[in-house]
Amino acid sequence: MIKTDILIIGAGPTGLFAVFEAGLLQLRCHLIDALAQPGGQCSEIYPKKPIYDIPGFPEVLAGDLVKNLMQQIAPFQPGFTLGERAETIEEQEDGTFIVTTNKGTRHQAPVVAIAGGLGSFEPRKPLLKDLPKFEDKGVAYMIKDPEVYRDKKVVIAGGGDSALDWTIFLADVASEVTLVHRRNEFRGALDSVKKVQELKDQGKVRLITPSEVVGLTGQDHLDGVVINRTSDPESDIHLETDHFIPLFGLSPKLGPIADWGLEIEKNAIKVDNTLDYQTNIPGIYAIGDVNTYPGKLKLILCGFHEATLMVQSAYQRIHPDKRYVMKYTTVGGINGFDGSKKEAPKAVVKSID
Amino acid sequence: MIKTDILIIGAGPTGLFAVFEAGLLQLRCHLIDALAQPGGQCSEIYPKKPIYDIPGFPEVLAGDLVKNLMQQIAPFQPGFTLGERAETIEEQEDGTFIVTTNKGTRHQAPVVAIAGGLGSFEPRKPLLKDLPKFEDKGVAYMIKDPEVYRDKKVVIAGGGDSALDWTIFLADVASEVTLVHRRNEFRGALDSVKKVQELKDQGKVRLITPSEVVGLTGQDHLDGVVINRTSDPESDIHLETDHFIPLFGLSPKLGPIADWGLEIEKNAIKVDNTLDYQTNIPGIYAIGDVNTYPGKLKLILCGFHEATLMVQSAYQRIHPDKRYVMKYTTVGGINGFDGSKKEAPKAVVKSID
Ligand SMILES: Cc1cc2nc3c(=O)[nH]c(=O)nc-3n(C[C@H](O)[C@H](O)[C@H](O)COP(=O)(O)OP(=O)(O)OC[C@H]3O[C@@H](n4cnc5c(N)ncnc54)[C@H](O)[C@@H]3O)c2cc1C
Ligand SMILES: Cc1cc2nc3c(=O)[nH]c(=O)nc-3n(C[C@H](O)[C@H](O)[C@H](O)COP(=O)(O)OP(=O)(O)OC[C@H]3O[C@@H](n4cnc5c(N)ncnc54)[C@H](O)[C@@H]3O)c2cc1C
Repeated sequence: MIKTDILIIGAGPTGLFAVFEAGLLQLRCHLIDALAQPGGQCSEIYPKKPIYDIPGFPEVLAGDLVKNLMQQIAPFQPGFTLGERAETIEEQEDGTFIVTTNKGTRHQAPVVAIAGGLGSFEPRKPLLKDLPKFEDKGVAYMIKDPEVYRDKKVVIAGGGDSALDWTIFLADVASEVTLVHRRNEFRGALDSVKKVQELKDQGKVRLITPSEVVGLTGQDHLDGVVINRTSDPESDIHLETDHFIPLFGLSPKLGPIADWGLEIEKNAIKVDNTLDYQTNIPGIYAIGDVNTYPGKLKLILCGFHEATLMVQSAYQRIHPDKRYVMKYTTVGGINGFDGSKKEAPKAVVKSID
Repeated sequence: MIKTDILIIGAGPTGLFAVFEAGLLQLRCHLIDALAQPGGQCSEIYPKKPIYDIPGFPEVLAGDLVKNLMQQIAPFQPGFTLGERAETIEEQEDGTFIVTTNKGTRHQAPVVAIAGGLGSFEPRKPLLKDLPKFEDKGVAYMIKDPEVYRDKKVVIAGGGDSALDWTIFLADVASEVTLVHRRNEFRGALDSVKKVQELKDQGKVRLITPSEVVGLTGQDHLDGVVINRTSDPESDIHLETDHFIPLFGLSPKLGPIADWGLEIEKNAIKVDNTLDYQTNIPGIYAIGDVNTYPGKLKLILCGFHEATLMVQSAYQRIHPDKRYVMKYTTVGGINGFDGSKKEAPKAVVKSID
């Protein structure tokens, strides 16, 4: 059982910044996310695109914003359960909650903050017989740890940024990388398309286009795929491989959270915006894109504010007998759980003679 | 008469960011501030100190945050009335407001956003006979345009960061700079104290300490000051000078806004946080440190959120017949009033062969 002060469901920008604000109040956080990496929509949908409306950044790449947030919260040592979906919640007699993921990981905390955005990112899967049988046994829809693929044979399918980027990345890691796509045309950042062309020309990756993976082979573990070329539908290619990674995009689904007894409106969770973004269940908050209230804007900067106010209320719930007196970070500095300390340089009092 | 869509009182971080959000909605802004420069508390009180809780910045100097905000809003060409205090407000028959400053500058807008922070920054003035007579005629409490002092004789009084910083800056501009302080000890950033010591050693500035300015001379314009040395209280020094700049700090006072008929609580303006941060007078909003509502935190990031929601409501007031459909900046880009355009690079669709 993983125990923490605030259990955050969703490691998008809102959930990440909540860790920082909680840390200032000496509260510890643990985050659960269905994605393999933190950053939510910023990481999954548009990591290389500039955002223009983050205050103080005339321009920042979504991926860099996430990197900055990760650096900002590092002193507060958040825990992560990645690649798992929060599935059920049970309130305990002592008022704490237990949240269990689809993989059975259990988490307990007195406060749950749902920062689930548009929902848990779920992969679009190809329609293939035996696909479920090989899941986690050679078939994966997202890459959690690239080292898994070191010196292995890998087949990637897809024609977008993820397929391009992982093809490039794994070219240096795997023993063999094959990219399969229904068309000759790829859709992504110009740089990535060019790089894959280069790798192909150098013989470092194999491209089979236009084509589709139509079958999987293997006993306990995947050992090959069957590829069908559009140009020659009669003759299937049998390709040996250790891994098959279809990257057809992930799409968010509110999913199990919709059944947690929370008031839902417009596919979002209703919260009390007059005070602390608490839901109809005391102790469960909803912040960021996942919540709704009159005038709600689904913007990153709004999630930051909501996280900040939420944490104040969480503090009262966790420490009903203490009174928290806010200190500016400029004045009080940052005291990390890792023992680190950041502080503004003090003014000197010095004579001039 | 200066006319604009949203008249913002206070050019602190909140007021500045409101310009950006308004610009996204094609609304123009004009800002009034009692200070000579934008940035509010960040510029006036702690420009060289790091802030740790601006989301996405593990650390940012307050002065740099203001610089970034100025750069971010530049495409939306805000107007500024600086060094003037908003004094009175009158609602017109057509529902617009006219705001007049202590110097008589008049501004008209259908929406007024008060982003006045802890209040209008007012200088602490020395107790000197004839001081009001020389105000703007040789005596100034803040420096709006350093070029005014080019090749002039200047006497600065004070022992803090402002006195040190302007002494350093004007050493290269004025023909003569004298720094007068009650003590030998100065209180400020170590760098600044060292630099003033250097300038003194090089004969580039004159220090008279411990001492006080006790008198002013001149007819229509200041032509000299009388300085009294603590060590020798009997013999006054008469010093010729074109300018006397006492820099004893500025302190914020809610001031005239308190009499505008707005509901005030705890020295702040009550607003409707359930929707749009509007005050009890429709069309007048209050955002940032100047407002109060249950759970209010006087933090910069909260001002950013409030400004963003406020602007949506302002848009409805200004364009009751239009419906604004929010577009992400990443998707819609930024269209400056200056004709500039920023946009995320589009994905390419390109074949690999
Ligand atoms: C193309 C595009 C451009 C955009 N441009 C801008 C812009 O310019 N400015 C701006 O402010 N905003 C922009 N946005 C919106 C912005 O990305 C969102 O407001 C922001 O990501 C919301 O952050 P969040 O942390 O609330 O949620 P998200 O980023 O959606 O993160 C939520 C996370 O929760 C996880 N999750 C949900 N449910 C579960 C569960 N049951 N178990 C485990 N994990 C779960 C999801 O997998 C996800 O990773 C844009 C969005 C898109 C798609
Ligand atoms: C030492 C110190 C450290 C801080 N550290 C942090 C920190 O780490 N993190 C954080 O989030 N916050 C911090 N703060 C608070 C932060 O500075 C404020 O929250 C922020 O400045 C509020 O911005 P604002 O734009 O609402 O108001 P302000 O910055 O106060 O700006 C308001 C402006 O309005 C002007 N004004 C008011 N009335 C009038 C009028 N009638 N006419 C003309 N002009 C007027 C004032 O002159 C002023 O320039 C700190 C504050 C201090 C003093």
